Amino acid sequence: MTKGKDHHYDADGTTCIGYLALPDGHGPFPGVLVSPAFAGLSDKERATCDRLAAQGYVALGVDYYANGTLAKDREEAAALMATLQSDRPLLASRLVAALTELRGLPQTQGQKLGAMGYCFGGKSILDLARVGADFAAGVILHGVYDAPSFPIQKMKANLLVCDGWDDGLCPPDAKVALAQELTDYCDDWQMLAFGGTGHAFTNPDATPSKGSGYSAKADARSWKALTDFFHAELHG
Amino acid sequence: MTKGKDHHYDADGTTCIGYLALPDGHGPFPGVLVSPAFAGLSDKERATCDRLAAQGYVALGVDYYANGTLAKDREEAAALMATLQSDRPLLASRLVAALTELRGLPQTQGQKLGAMGYCFGGKSILDLARVGADFAAGVILHGVYDAPSFPIQKMKANLLVCDGWDDGLCPPDAKVALAQELTDYCDDWQMLAFGGTGHAFTNPDATPSKGSGYSAKADARSWKALTDFFHAELHG
Repeated sequence: MTKGKDHHYDADGTTCIGYLALPDGHGPFPGVLVSPAFAGLSDKERATCDRLAAQGYVALGVDYYANGTLAKDREEAAALMATLQSDRPLLASRLVAALTELRGLPQTQGQKLGAMGYCFGGKSILDLARVGADFAAGVILHGVYDAPSFPIQKMKANLLVCDGWDDGLCPPDAKVALAQELTDYCDDWQMLAFGGTGHAFTNPDATPSKGSGYSAKADARSWKALTDFFHAELHG
Repeated sequence: MTKGKDHHYDADGTTCIGYLALPDGHGPFPGVLVSPAFAGLSDKERATCDRLAAQGYVALGVDYYANGTLAKDREEAAALMATLQSDRPLLASRLVAALTELRGLPQTQGQKLGAMGYCFGGKSILDLARVGADFAAGVILHGVYDAPSFPIQKMKANLLVCDGWDDGLCPPDAKVALAQELTDYCDDWQMLAFGGTGHAFTNPDATPSKGSGYSAKADARSWKALTDFFHAELHG
């Protein structure tokens, strides 16, 4: 089913195994980073890359754990995530490396770049913006918003934040705190909250529980919001 | 410029002078109420009706002050608004009357109905939902969220709430309170907040001040969100 391929790139001397999906036809094309949920780069994010490629974007799936690491269960994912959560500059540098790789591809030459991420990958997109990285548009899907250990820089990216109102990982006070942070550091941002919706609403395999679970409606609405946003921000 | 016409309808024995804009072609068509900002039904809302008619909706501009009342300045508008603010059941009944009128038109027979409103008109759409009125989709643009004096009913309408993060009339605690209310009473709702944006962002004539003022970008984004929402909710 997938149309892309594994794509090796360097992050400060460490090999990352991303996933690169290319549109049909001749480019150059706008590019989009796809940063995975906390398990690491999986077939779910590869499928997102393929969907974006079908819409005319060069899509690079991010391997922020490096070496193609994919957790085999939630416990391993949590342990992996903890290592980067405790070293936010490293998380940011892994994203910067992926952005640099995407920018350097012949298929994106001179084009605008976007970035999107799910869950901990949503946090990674926020952190990419927070270090002042040069990209045009970022989308955070059921992300996590705690401020990083490093000083936040003026953001260059326009941001769209989509979350569920009932998401236990970004409760109302966290949403308000993020909005206040973005007010201070980001010139162009939007927050779209889905009522009656919890964490991981894009993931059909998410275990349903209070504050978490798949929502076909929120999944479809957020995908439309994301693709409309990238269409508006990454072309022309 | 305008293509619609004044349209008289009854609200519990009081004459209202709304504005009716019809699509070209043969109906029936989905219908949309357009509830004005606090000055009353003006050419701005008539233009919105015309834009909606051009997209295939029967659009009825609401005269919630009745008798075609339009304030000549902000002071008069504030005084008019105060009368309905102090009688929220009357405001709701004026909206119910307009909805009943829209439903009874031959051009909307058997079709779904939506409702939208600006500022105090946004509040009127919330109150229409809060009395449990039967409509499919409501959009609130830079609205005001204080709870009504009447008991809130289970809402039938799906709602989209668009506001500016910096709007002094719906600060963060008011947004959170509305979201909590909707969590309790509405099965399908979304809130879209625009960063760096204040009250009245759709109004090119709004006096710029802290927490208020026109935003071409938020105006365009909210119009797209509104029309996409009505397209999704009012067809089929």
